[in-house]
Amino acid sequence: MSQPLIPPRGQHVDLRGYDPAFTGNLAKEQARQLLPALCERLNELQDTLYADRRFAVLVVLQGIDTAGKDGTIKNVFRDVGPLGCSVANFGVPTEEELAHDFLWRYHRETPARGKFVVFNRSHYEAVLVERVKSLVPEATWQARYDQINAFERLLVDEGVVVMKFFLHISREEQRERLQERIDNPKKHWKFRQGDLEERRNWDRYQQAFAEMLSRCNPAHAPWHIVPADHKWYRDLVVARALVDRIEALGLRYPGPFEHLAGIRVV
Amino acid sequence: MSQPLIPPRGQHVDLRGYDPAFTGNLAKEQARQLLPALCERLNELQDTLYADRRFAVLVVLQGIDTAGKDGTIKNVFRDVGPLGCSVANFGVPTEEELAHDFLWRYHRETPARGKFVVFNRSHYEAVLVERVKSLVPEATWQARYDQINAFERLLVDEGVVVMKFFLHISREEQRERLQERIDNPKKHWKFRQGDLEERRNWDRYQQAFAEMLSRCNPAHAPWHIVPADHKWYRDLVVARALVDRIEALGLRYPGPFEHLAGIRVV
Repeated sequence: MSQPLIPPRGQHVDLRGYDPAFTGNLAKEQARQLLPALCERLNELQDTLYADRRFAVLVVLQGIDTAGKDGTIKNVFRDVGPLGCSVANFGVPTEEELAHDFLWRYHRETPARGKFVVFNRSHYEAVLVERVKSLVPEATWQARYDQINAFERLLVDEGVVVMKFFLHISREEQRERLQERIDNPKKHWKFRQGDLEERRNWDRYQQAFAEMLSRCNPAHAPWHIVPADHKWYRDLVVARALVDRIEALGLRYPGPFEHLAGIRVV
Repeated sequence: MSQPLIPPRGQHVDLRGYDPAFTGNLAKEQARQLLPALCERLNELQDTLYADRRFAVLVVLQGIDTAGKDGTIKNVFRDVGPLGCSVANFGVPTEEELAHDFLWRYHRETPARGKFVVFNRSHYEAVLVERVKSLVPEATWQARYDQINAFERLLVDEGVVVMKFFLHISREEQRERLQERIDNPKKHWKFRQGDLEERRNWDRYQQAFAEMLSRCNPAHAPWHIVPADHKWYRDLVVARALVDRIEALGLRYPGPFEHLAGIRVV
């Protein structure tokens, strides 16, 4: 049993072909043992990325409400910590943001060389919520796929590693997670009546996700479709993909400066 | 054997009275056992702070080169993570920043309600490096103590908890840490020739620190003088002070909304 993590290029993604509960025959206990070493490795890689100063890493997290974006950040970046990584959250656009092109507010938050930034929701909202709720005309959101591709091309050309993760959960899993927010008093504050309304748009969101995954999946900035019904598998997949990709950069500590030899601090 | 964490108000701080190697008779092994629970508690408190939305927390870290600002962030905010906390670093001011009042770039980075922000160096640089290196006239930096007090008063009045930590190390401890950067190839990139030049200003920095600690120490935003020669003690002191202060806020999860009762998600 297997399913691709990165959807094949040049064909339309059908999300029904991706099982949100997929775990690759891995047991939860095994995953729990594997994750800590990956988190530690990611932290080491972040240190080297900072010293090396040639590359930056932008992690894009998308997924429907309750898909587990916050939890993924908590668990995968546990060792990297706030010193090595910052998180950009994007809410309802402000008046000033609306007065600019749709990529403006996202561009400001992209990582400087040496840094990790996680987009907790991202520029893809412009072809997700804005499309599903008809906030802009179809001609506008249709043009955005190419605009997004050009934007990510620029980032990659300039040394930003763009890692995109779509957290894929089932309709039933979302039902359980929303119900938990209603039933658990400590989670009441996370719940909005609007969440139930959004859930009624489930099919339209799945369609918008599929189109985003199909049209914005170049080799230099591919999507990863992460089976996310099981949180432990989701975290492992994201951590491993990041470690593999960043290790492949061949990062290094800048070499010794000759003039340091023999210096004694007094 | 004891020494105050918060210097007494209304008298001039003499840093020679504060032992940088102080550990309050605590053993390293004990501290190692105490820290994890404090880090976890800090994470819980951050969650509640976010749900509660009445307060924000601004952590200010100051200290001479190698005092351990980065290490403190790594260790104390380990469980809070990048989702719950962001770090603002302030380097050499840009042209745009210099074209504004000196507090402008710091004000932009203060935390929104519900958030933790750590200032890794802060607005106090304006009465430290700028004073020591005579980057501005004396009349300018002399006026800044009151300007800083007024700025922090505003923040506190508006719900920001301002927690200021001065990481206090000895001259000998700095010597060892700088030497390590020269001797360990993995740390070469952290070393600048300018670091040795700055070290020659040691006494002038101690004097500037003492004045900052004396003149900007109101009850609503006190300084903590953290003995920082021992990293394990430093981390414990900072973590405990944060937990104690934030617990005293009486944070709470917003109460249950009546209209949630009985809702079944379908």
